[in-house]
Amino acid sequence: MTLQAIKWQDKKLLVLDQLLLPMESKYITVTSVDEGWQVINKMQVRGAPAIAIVGCLSLATELINSSFTDKEEVFKAISEKLEYLVTARPTAVNMKKAADELTAISKKLCEDSITVADMIELVTNWCQKMLEDDVNTNKKIGWFGADSILKAAGDKNVQLLTHCNTGSLATAGYGTALGVIRSIHEQGRLEQAYCTETRPYNQGARLTAYELVFEKMPATLICDSMAAALMNCRNINAVVVGADRVTRNGDTANKIGTYQLAVTAKCHNVPFYVCAPTTSIDLSLDEGKEIPIEERPHDEMTDIAGIRIASPGISCWNPAFDVTPAELITGGIVTELGVFKPAELQNKLRAQ
Amino acid sequence: MTLQAIKWQDKKLLVLDQLLLPMESKYITVTSVDEGWQVINKMQVRGAPAIAIVGCLSLATELINSSFTDKEEVFKAISEKLEYLVTARPTAVNMKKAADELTAISKKLCEDSITVADMIELVTNWCQKMLEDDVNTNKKIGWFGADSILKAAGDKNVQLLTHCNTGSLATAGYGTALGVIRSIHEQGRLEQAYCTETRPYNQGARLTAYELVFEKMPATLICDSMAAALMNCRNINAVVVGADRVTRNGDTANKIGTYQLAVTAKCHNVPFYVCAPTTSIDLSLDEGKEIPIEERPHDEMTDIAGIRIASPGISCWNPAFDVTPAELITGGIVTELGVFKPAELQNKLRAQ
Repeated sequence: MTLQAIKWQDKKLLVLDQLLLPMESKYITVTSVDEGWQVINKMQVRGAPAIAIVGCLSLATELINSSFTDKEEVFKAISEKLEYLVTARPTAVNMKKAADELTAISKKLCEDSITVADMIELVTNWCQKMLEDDVNTNKKIGWFGADSILKAAGDKNVQLLTHCNTGSLATAGYGTALGVIRSIHEQGRLEQAYCTETRPYNQGARLTAYELVFEKMPATLICDSMAAALMNCRNINAVVVGADRVTRNGDTANKIGTYQLAVTAKCHNVPFYVCAPTTSIDLSLDEGKEIPIEERPHDEMTDIAGIRIASPGISCWNPAFDVTPAELITGGIVTELGVFKPAELQNKLRAQ
Repeated sequence: MTLQAIKWQDKKLLVLDQLLLPMESKYITVTSVDEGWQVINKMQVRGAPAIAIVGCLSLATELINSSFTDKEEVFKAISEKLEYLVTARPTAVNMKKAADELTAISKKLCEDSITVADMIELVTNWCQKMLEDDVNTNKKIGWFGADSILKAAGDKNVQLLTHCNTGSLATAGYGTALGVIRSIHEQGRLEQAYCTETRPYNQGARLTAYELVFEKMPATLICDSMAAALMNCRNINAVVVGADRVTRNGDTANKIGTYQLAVTAKCHNVPFYVCAPTTSIDLSLDEGKEIPIEERPHDEMTDIAGIRIASPGISCWNPAFDVTPAELITGGIVTELGVFKPAELQNKLRAQ
């Protein structure tokens, strides 16, 4: 048994409500694009790959239950609804890339000599396949990342630090950066995994810790501010994080705090790895400063579980992401195609 | 009106319960050394200067209500009780230094030809004077720190980042690092103060934010992980923090996360200032690695206001402090005697 953030059963989409984890495990049935947009925007599901899958599958549920009679209408609905889904959260590129691809596919299907029902079935199948493909992609990321880290460690077991949640809950399963940790654990080589709390949303304390405990990996929670002290007094072999968007030069947008971890890792000579499927890589942008950074509501910082924790009247700054410049990604960018230095990324992906 | 963490009224000691702030403002009456130890250990009062003052004043209340007939007995009680108070929290040196000094004074008084009542009165007066002296000390720290930062800023207003709480609530009043911010604000030169949440105890979100709002300073709360992103996209003139203990070479123990901020500041060429009275400087230790670092209970990380926020079953690492090496203290160490480079500290203090 593994944790499943997204289930597709009998043509129904079920999304695990991550706002309730780890205290409550409850699935939301998503039956429309509007509901899909809501669960993404409210962060009931989060993680760049998971957002794209839920977005596309919410469209699939709506199409399955639709009564279109005209393929042009289907195409119009698909392209408009995908465009709307992209607006739910702006920083991660996966939903945008999926939307572009599925819109192009739909346009082609629209022109093919097939029925409305066939068109809907093919689009729906494509969405379902995202769910299946993502797990395989993550297993490859896990293997490549583990291989790179273990090679550098010789015959010693390793201690890793990760940020936010990049596990089964952020993907269709297995995970990206947490997939690397999982792979190292499966090989019996994990000495200790450290996870940050990841304020203000506590994805580390709530979700990553939950997955690590669930899988019985040796794991310790730290506060975001403790990473430097940790690197100073315990031997950390690598930092592994996910990505919401990687630009052509290797700059990476990821959960707020990632950049500070990268600065800290560099200062302590700890290799820093970004682990992401190629669907998170956006070759249309030259560098990180072009990535839109989402700012979230202040009450995510000032309140926890409905309880005010900050002084009344204080202003907040709550960017959900930051950009880590390529030069700080010293370990490499781990994809399903291999581990690349940021500078190699563009050529390696183009060569595929 | 200013916030007062410690009140000495009609020979009674009142301590503002900082566990309840900012939601509730309630004073605890401390009538014994045991109660003094408890409020310090539970962190109902915190901040290196405030800990020492509350410790000594709790002794004063006990002495005032005692019925000693013999000066030797008084001396024995004083030295034993001070030794006990030092154990409440190990990292800050102020209580230890006050204990050593007051023990020496008591020994001398014991040998003088004075009555038991005189001895008790003189000891009690010494403790009260700590409260008065600390505010004056802090105002000097505020002035020296402001002067150094403003000189570097030319005629521009400044933006500062601080960590934890070093204000009226951590001292007898005015504050150390927050005293510097207060002084700059009084001079009309504060563009914006940023304060970190300071997990896991949230002294920044609860206490510093409270003081900044109370004093109507322009202020913004950030999460601990956002400092690097902040320095990257907003012009921060300096980071100002307090200290729990500074060793002979300038290494500084302070609230966990200080070291990471110093690494981050260095990377962004932002001057980093440690602001502390000379009572926080421990010339008996050569360097930071000799400072005992307190580890606190895990539930301070996993629970907030009695609500579990972390996944059940996860292990934690919860050091309350870390050590910032002298070379990262690029702005200087701000004391009531002036601003010193870490390397100058020893000679400057010895010269007094």
